[in-house]
Amino acid sequence: MSPIKQVSVEARQVDGYKIEAHARSHSLIIDQPVAGGGTDSGPTPLEYLFFSLAGCVCTIGHIIARQRKMDVRNISVRVEGELDTAVLSGKATEPRPGFTSIRVITEIDADMTQEEKEQFLRDIDARCPISDNLFNRTPVEFIVQQAEVVA
Amino acid sequence: MSPIKQVSVEARQVDGYKIEAHARSHSLIIDQPVAGGGTDSGPTPLEYLFFSLAGCVCTIGHIIARQRKMDVRNISVRVEGELDTAVLSGKATEPRPGFTSIRVITEIDADMTQEEKEQFLRDIDARCPISDNLFNRTPVEFIVQQAEVVA
Repeated sequence: MSPIKQVSVEARQVDGYKIEAHARSHSLIIDQPVAGGGTDSGPTPLEYLFFSLAGCVCTIGHIIARQRKMDVRNISVRVEGELDTAVLSGKATEPRPGFTSIRVITEIDADMTQEEKEQFLRDIDARCPISDNLFNRTPVEFIVQQAEVVA
Repeated sequence: MSPIKQVSVEARQVDGYKIEAHARSHSLIIDQPVAGGGTDSGPTPLEYLFFSLAGCVCTIGHIIARQRKMDVRNISVRVEGELDTAVLSGKATEPRPGFTSIRVITEIDADMTQEEKEQFLRDIDARCPISDNLFNRTPVEFIVQQAEVVA
């Protein structure tokens, strides 16, 4: 089996900030809170980023625990971060549009010392795709599909 | 209103690769496909990353279109990318755990030339938090909650 994995999703604006998205057989809604002009039909794009990171930490933790036959009973994760909305709202071009910092706070239910848990978490971080894509630069190419191609 | 926005989510391993996650009043499931050892109860962490990026492009597009009173009837987005699973699976430490490249392919339904659509997409990219957090380095801090604090 090739180690190269291809991933793709599709999203389409339904109305205003409400977006319907699909990946394989799964569908979900992306929206903004009512206070932000949406209908709160689903989490925001920013929350989905954190779901991705939190899920990745639990997933890689489970892979490592299985591989090393560690008795890790449960992993729970809280992801939190702050961003300055001045750039995304168009009021400024500084400091940056995205999160300025992100914290991943884990609770690991296992018979391990605090130091062992911290090493386990460093091992998770080193193998976590989402952590890597956030911490290190990742090329993102933006393409407008030509009308001729679509038709 | 302060332009600083705080975002947080929580996720907890349910069983194996199945994870339950929450943000405000919203809940969802993260899982792996059956072929990957999961129960396919929800999208994967990698798919959630792309949902986040696709959703952000539609959302910022809608903000810009409203601010400029542009008649953008619809935006749809396909996000695709590839990663080498050798690092996340623990078989290697190269090339990197995450996506090596990401493409955002958009279809913009509006009375605009191809060039105008491309400029619109560049403007979206410049204000998109997720695009920024992927393309530029973002500090991610990993913390193990101490048992004393949890109890």
